[in-house]
Amino acid sequence: MDVERVVREALREDLPWGDITTDSLFPGPLRAHGEVVAKRAGVVAGLPLLEEVFRQLDPGVRVHPEVTDGTEVERGHVVARLEGDGRSLLAGERVALNFLCRLSGIATLTRRYVQAVSGLPCRIVDTRKTTPGLRALEKYAVRVGGGANHRFGLSDGVLVKDNHLALLRREGVSLREAVARIRARVPHGVRIQVEVTDPEQVEEVVEAGADALLMDNMDLPSLREAVARCRGRVLTEASGGITLESVRAVAETGVDVISVGALTHSAPALDLSLEIR
Amino acid sequence: MDVERVVREALREDLPWGDITTDSLFPGPLRAHGEVVAKRAGVVAGLPLLEEVFRQLDPGVRVHPEVTDGTEVERGHVVARLEGDGRSLLAGERVALNFLCRLSGIATLTRRYVQAVSGLPCRIVDTRKTTPGLRALEKYAVRVGGGANHRFGLSDGVLVKDNHLALLRREGVSLREAVARIRARVPHGVRIQVEVTDPEQVEEVVEAGADALLMDNMDLPSLREAVARCRGRVLTEASGGITLESVRAVAETGVDVISVGALTHSAPALDLSLEIR
Amino acid sequence: MDVERVVREALREDLPWGDITTDSLFPGPLRAHGEVVAKRAGVVAGLPLLEEVFRQLDPGVRVHPEVTDGTEVERGHVVARLEGDGRSLLAGERVALNFLCRLSGIATLTRRYVQAVSGLPCRIVDTRKTTPGLRALEKYAVRVGGGANHRFGLSDGVLVKDNHLALLRREGVSLREAVARIRARVPHGVRIQVEVTDPEQVEEVVEAGADALLMDNMDLPSLREAVARCRGRVLTEASGGITLESVRAVAETGVDVISVGALTHSAPALDLSLEIR
Amino acid sequence: MDVERVVREALREDLPWGDITTDSLFPGPLRAHGEVVAKRAGVVAGLPLLEEVFRQLDPGVRVHPEVTDGTEVERGHVVARLEGDGRSLLAGERVALNFLCRLSGIATLTRRYVQAVSGLPCRIVDTRKTTPGLRALEKYAVRVGGGANHRFGLSDGVLVKDNHLALLRREGVSLREAVARIRARVPHGVRIQVEVTDPEQVEEVVEAGADALLMDNMDLPSLREAVARCRGRVLTEASGGITLESVRAVAETGVDVISVGALTHSAPALDLSLEIR
Amino acid sequence: MDVERVVREALREDLPWGDITTDSLFPGPLRAHGEVVAKRAGVVAGLPLLEEVFRQLDPGVRVHPEVTDGTEVERGHVVARLEGDGRSLLAGERVALNFLCRLSGIATLTRRYVQAVSGLPCRIVDTRKTTPGLRALEKYAVRVGGGANHRFGLSDGVLVKDNHLALLRREGVSLREAVARIRARVPHGVRIQVEVTDPEQVEEVVEAGADALLMDNMDLPSLREAVARCRGRVLTEASGGITLESVRAVAETGVDVISVGALTHSAPALDLSLEIR
Amino acid sequence: MDVERVVREALREDLPWGDITTDSLFPGPLRAHGEVVAKRAGVVAGLPLLEEVFRQLDPGVRVHPEVTDGTEVERGHVVARLEGDGRSLLAGERVALNFLCRLSGIATLTRRYVQAVSGLPCRIVDTRKTTPGLRALEKYAVRVGGGANHRFGLSDGVLVKDNHLALLRREGVSLREAVARIRARVPHGVRIQVEVTDPEQVEEVVEAGADALLMDNMDLPSLREAVARCRGRVLTEASGGITLESVRAVAETGVDVISVGALTHSAPALDLSLEIR
Repeated sequence: MDVERVVREALREDLPWGDITTDSLFPGPLRAHGEVVAKRAGVVAGLPLLEEVFRQLDPGVRVHPEVTDGTEVERGHVVARLEGDGRSLLAGERVALNFLCRLSGIATLTRRYVQAVSGLPCRIVDTRKTTPGLRALEKYAVRVGGGANHRFGLSDGVLVKDNHLALLRREGVSLREAVARIRARVPHGVRIQVEVTDPEQVEEVVEAGADALLMDNMDLPSLREAVARCRGRVLTEASGGITLESVRAVAETGVDVISVGALTHSAPALDLSLEIR
Repeated sequence: MDVERVVREALREDLPWGDITTDSLFPGPLRAHGEVVAKRAGVVAGLPLLEEVFRQLDPGVRVHPEVTDGTEVERGHVVARLEGDGRSLLAGERVALNFLCRLSGIATLTRRYVQAVSGLPCRIVDTRKTTPGLRALEKYAVRVGGGANHRFGLSDGVLVKDNHLALLRREGVSLREAVARIRARVPHGVRIQVEVTDPEQVEEVVEAGADALLMDNMDLPSLREAVARCRGRVLTEASGGITLESVRAVAETGVDVISVGALTHSAPALDLSLEIR
Repeated sequence: MDVERVVREALREDLPWGDITTDSLFPGPLRAHGEVVAKRAGVVAGLPLLEEVFRQLDPGVRVHPEVTDGTEVERGHVVARLEGDGRSLLAGERVALNFLCRLSGIATLTRRYVQAVSGLPCRIVDTRKTTPGLRALEKYAVRVGGGANHRFGLSDGVLVKDNHLALLRREGVSLREAVARIRARVPHGVRIQVEVTDPEQVEEVVEAGADALLMDNMDLPSLREAVARCRGRVLTEASGGITLESVRAVAETGVDVISVGALTHSAPALDLSLEIR
Repeated sequence: MDVERVVREALREDLPWGDITTDSLFPGPLRAHGEVVAKRAGVVAGLPLLEEVFRQLDPGVRVHPEVTDGTEVERGHVVARLEGDGRSLLAGERVALNFLCRLSGIATLTRRYVQAVSGLPCRIVDTRKTTPGLRALEKYAVRVGGGANHRFGLSDGVLVKDNHLALLRREGVSLREAVARIRARVPHGVRIQVEVTDPEQVEEVVEAGADALLMDNMDLPSLREAVARCRGRVLTEASGGITLESVRAVAETGVDVISVGALTHSAPALDLSLEIR
Repeated sequence: MDVERVVREALREDLPWGDITTDSLFPGPLRAHGEVVAKRAGVVAGLPLLEEVFRQLDPGVRVHPEVTDGTEVERGHVVARLEGDGRSLLAGERVALNFLCRLSGIATLTRRYVQAVSGLPCRIVDTRKTTPGLRALEKYAVRVGGGANHRFGLSDGVLVKDNHLALLRREGVSLREAVARIRARVPHGVRIQVEVTDPEQVEEVVEAGADALLMDNMDLPSLREAVARCRGRVLTEASGGITLESVRAVAETGVDVISVGALTHSAPALDLSLEIR
Repeated sequence: MDVERVVREALREDLPWGDITTDSLFPGPLRAHGEVVAKRAGVVAGLPLLEEVFRQLDPGVRVHPEVTDGTEVERGHVVARLEGDGRSLLAGERVALNFLCRLSGIATLTRRYVQAVSGLPCRIVDTRKTTPGLRALEKYAVRVGGGANHRFGLSDGVLVKDNHLALLRREGVSLREAVARIRARVPHGVRIQVEVTDPEQVEEVVEAGADALLMDNMDLPSLREAVARCRGRVLTEASGGITLESVRAVAETGVDVISVGALTHSAPALDLSLEIR
């Protein structure tokens, strides 16, 4: 993951020509200790970014994580201790927390979804609805939270969605032909997944040669029926507005995968702060 | 704003070596129309990014916004129409929406806060709790929503916060001396703002020469008292866990500015989608 | 594909502070025509780079391709015509040809391999043995030549190779466990491919849950036997020093895929030159 | 040489979001040794890139070269030993080898040319027919192989070639005037080289003030005659389709320099592999 | 400050493919000592850049500053000692000196201005007339010389200048309205400064709500009158062709700030050289 | 020349998140005309940068140069006219002028030196004492002023200077051997220049095979004697503290080239301003 570059950009964004408050107040170095403290319970993710921020800003700052990424912490828990020039702690605080709070927010929300389906043979995965520029980090946070990743982007996975199907129909291309075209062009290591909106379409898609189905915005009975019709021949994924309240019922329909855009596009940040002692 | 660079990075992230699904399905160009539709009511922000995504991906795609940034739209409202090669619409859809949904989410939440204090002489502002790499865009979305911006970062504004004050105390530096040090070093166009945690501290901070106060996590009576003690000599800002429910009461204490981190760190994305006709 | 960036770097490399010969000789613009001519027969690939070079160097130069990427041309064939300021033609000539000759060399060699297995149900694919910085372009040239692509890199495909297997054995991890670990971590759209060195291993790998086999440096009888043992349950790929002379025999063993590193690491450039009229 | 940047780009290209095979298989670090082994005889070039790849990927990996750049190795020879986390060896293997194999291929081919003219006062040089983005590295490999470099690019050397001459003729500019224009504009440390296609032109070019001649695609008698006519007053360079078979005869004509595009545009990679013990 | 990037670019500019003189002369490392010596008296600025140049070029070179930035040195004074491979000293000498001489030139000129107003309550500040790409470094040199900084750029400070005023007049926008528009849009930490060309305008600008005045190219009596009319209600800044000869008289008019473009746009470089022992 | 990149960096530096003054004052576009006017007489250089600044900032702004680079203008002369959105003129003014004033300052100073030696067969050249990041532009300005360029940097020219000679002596390497080493390693198009400090050394350097001499800080009689001893066999260059007052006398010694560091390191900016009508 391109941690070095995103941290460099973030520092350049926040203090392109220094921290004018701190630089004015303290003409010389001053030894200080800091603690990153959880102000709410949640799952920590992003400690390597905390380390990278201070490595770039001032390698003299020592970062001692007290937990590892993936740890569930309570309110008040000390997540990491910092030691070094207090001026650097003040200068790097916000950038470091911006990474840590966002990624921990994603990991925390993912963990809640994973717990909601615990015991069922179903994986919770992310989508491409990520923050521009931070996809690799956010997908990492999903894994830290216990989820799995969907394809990274348009270049490495195949998903024939409603908009593709509409254009294929308009062009008079059959589903069988569509799958054949993809098979001929994409690396042999890539599976082909096709969206269905109705259980009636399952047979056609399976026979066209798809390896997996995406069932977007189907109700529970339809999901159940679609899974049944697949008879294990293809992977099944459900998506579309699935909440913490509804996710277990969806998993109980027997789908293999549930994708949740909110994991990355709407996870509230986990509240963490830096306290200097 | 560095729109070109963030869009370039976002496209490189999502389709570094092309859209393998679409490229496989459609060997040649195919004319298509698309509509960006609001799936929920909210305030639109980010249309220039929609245009930039397609300008970079395929300048042949025409983007026709139906509203301007800042418009409050209802569910089902068409936000923009697109026309061009359907392959490009499919390839750029997600990156464009990722920008638009996030920025519109921020503008929508900001608008709600601004409406909650309507009629009161108090501005809603953002913080530095922004997404790394997207600060300029997110601060733009706050303005679109009707809010104002706080300082951009550590280089262009002065805020002496609790952690600075703790170190100053430890070093035996008086507040008056602290303000004098800053005044001597920062550009004359920059105001000096200092945090207080108790109304008792107001007089000391005003006399030390500060131009503005930050009152973090104070209860309403304290805020009221602090504002009264200022007697209009300095600007006052309240912050700390202020919600849509509590914001009006805070504004009624007479503070000039209310800063809300959640505008940028926890605004849920506004649900918008691209539909190809 | 990041054509803009690689062309920019290539121009910066060749003429960082201008073309001192041409700039000295010709103080003002001078209209000229140029022809890109094949000096040897081969398959053309890279015309979009020819266009991009001149778009960046001087948008006044008109580039008129006479063929499309993938066309088999004879010696003496005119591949493209250029028209514009002769100074720009001279300045951009070498960079444009460096792209075009290399990519056409790859497409030409790929075409020869594809022709050698014509009529057999076997695809010729590339490897990760590409020129650093040019992988997307080189893989494009392989497709232009009629081949298919293997995974793009380590992030988007799974291949458990001899070195992995050696470390797994040392750590006491069974193949079944290995495949299970991967299945749990990688996106559900990715197939798992495992290397075998002996037909005896086929059953174990298939039973461990692999989706595809890589058979590196096996002789023909072993390949034949391995394919037979697979009974169509998994995809089979042969690799390792396969030449234009040997490729048909390998394909006749029934393997699905033949990967050839030489397509990208050792294809001689196709000789093309620019002639100014 | 900008080694850091090209290695960074190459790693970003091959594993933008990690090595999903290795990361899945091995949850924690595992000590391993690796050997880079020559699978064919040749001249090694590029060891500093091997070191840089692992420095960037994992500074914990120790790289111990067993030879230096320029060493002629036999098949089976160990070129370098690596020690560190086996996961990093697996992740960096291909990028490191892609550099090493390509550069060693160039050094090996150059060495063969240099050996072919051994004993004659003639230098073998490269051309601008290099891989876009890798020119400095490839020219380094030529020097490692015992060759010398021609100008780096259009900005630092002067070569008036056939296409320039055609335009000069059309514009009615004499050769003397052409050389004078260049002399007036380029740094005084740069020599002026002019192409001739016929021995008859030698006198005119020498009298026009050129410092060196380029004789492209001349046959042996013509070369001999042209060299004779120069009478040591200017440097002479031969070029154009000169092969390992023909190079000695060309050198024996008395030319000072022989340039060979194939050194960089068509050198087959040297086969090296990484074996983990 | 983005020291790493500017140094990287500067090295890439000066020796993109190595130092061909030094590399040819010395095949192996050779221990050497060097001294950076002032050839003229002045104020040193830029020692961190000296260190960064050698950190990037060859971390084996030890840089020992003999003074700190801001020290006034005499002709012949040793500013820093270097120790390491002589080849690296030769390769990095010019780039390092280019930074050091320019920044020291700025610091020296600033010091002269500051000394000229010594004892008066007036600060000498820079402008935006800086070298493109080096603004942060040049503003640092001004501070090193004892001056202060004006706003960094257009994004972080407000200055309504003659050109703005002309357009406002044309559009029929009153000064009061103009100040109100700015107040409503810019962060509350930013002061609003407005240009006046005549003491008569002072009252209008103060009443319009400006926080500071810019008086460009006013003569001394006008400056004195304008300052008097302000009665301490707003900050006052004088600018426009103020020289070392005239600056004290300007300061004696009572202005708070004097801005001098020449500090950065026309400071002669301080002559420093590297001598290898 | 990499004009696009340096302009992009300069704009990002000056207005990373917009022009907050102008954006606040003028909510919509407003047509305006501007004139770039010379406030002092001088030689204009840098008009292509004026055009590039507005091309990047707002392609709707039309730039009409009234002169060409190299024109000598009087005080009050209009150099270019601009037409477009007044907000863009205000936003781009400073960045454009920063380029134009600096480059015109260099061209103006160069022109003065060239005029001072007019009629003598001697060229005025620049050095490597340029602004980091702007070398290509500054060397362009020298040419615009009528001077010529020395080598661009360490990679494209050979100069054996005092520091090299000191190390060679210490290592016991003769001058002849030194020149031979360079000859063997650098491209055949590069001349070898060697510094001498005393006319006595001329013969040794010429016999060692050097193509050119650098005579640094020699007095006029020594220069005259050194030139005489050369007898036209090698080029001669004088350098070292040569001023407008002394340059003609130096040229009259018969040296071929005079290099002047001050052209780029200490040229005062030419005063140009933008006036909006």
